[in-house]
Amino acid sequence: MYIAMNRFQVIRGKETEFEAIWRSRDKHLAEVFGFIDFHLLKGPKEEGYTLYASHTVWSNYDSFEAWTKSDAFRKAHANAGKYKSVYLGHPNFEGFETVEGM
Amino acid sequence: MYIAMNRFQVIRGKETEFEAIWRSRDKHLAEVFGFIDFHLLKGPKEEGYTLYASHTVWSNYDSFEAWTKSDAFRKAHANAGKYKSVYLGHPNFEGFETVEGM
Repeated sequence: MYIAMNRFQVIRGKETEFEAIWRSRDKHLAEVFGFIDFHLLKGPKEEGYTLYASHTVWSNYDSFEAWTKSDAFRKAHANAGKYKSVYLGHPNFEGFETVEGM
Repeated sequence: MYIAMNRFQVIRGKETEFEAIWRSRDKHLAEVFGFIDFHLLKGPKEEGYTLYASHTVWSNYDSFEAWTKSDAFRKAHANAGKYKSVYLGHPNFEGFETVEGM
């Protein structure tokens, strides 16, 4: 299992707008090989921003990597630059491999 | 759904030791009300450390909070201070609520 998380610092007061952007976004994921599930997560409030994270579970790293090179990925990110006004800085990507689980 | 993540900065070279500690640890989770699943995750290598995260999925925040006040929690963390030599600094807790998903 591989978990791809992108961390977003959303400016305080812009949370509703940010969530609406994600709700209306066509993520082009459902049919992708190796895709397990996607959630948008709301994390702690910090000084000046609220932490959000996209959280996508893949069967393994190779499925994730193949998706990043696909048309589905390109389509899902076509408008990504359009909404810069809700963020502090760039999103911060972190990928995680499963070590053990129950 | 609520995801509780604890982020650990594991000193480079101590990864195997850190993973062994977690593999042998009795987590006292399986029988806890609202517990969905647990994974130990290995994230990116950074300057001087490798990021790891414990990743526990709960049915909701209230289940997680009840667990933090339980005997099961106390037992699971009884030895937590014993292995400080593998970490840079303290673990950093982040809790996430689901906003939307597919």
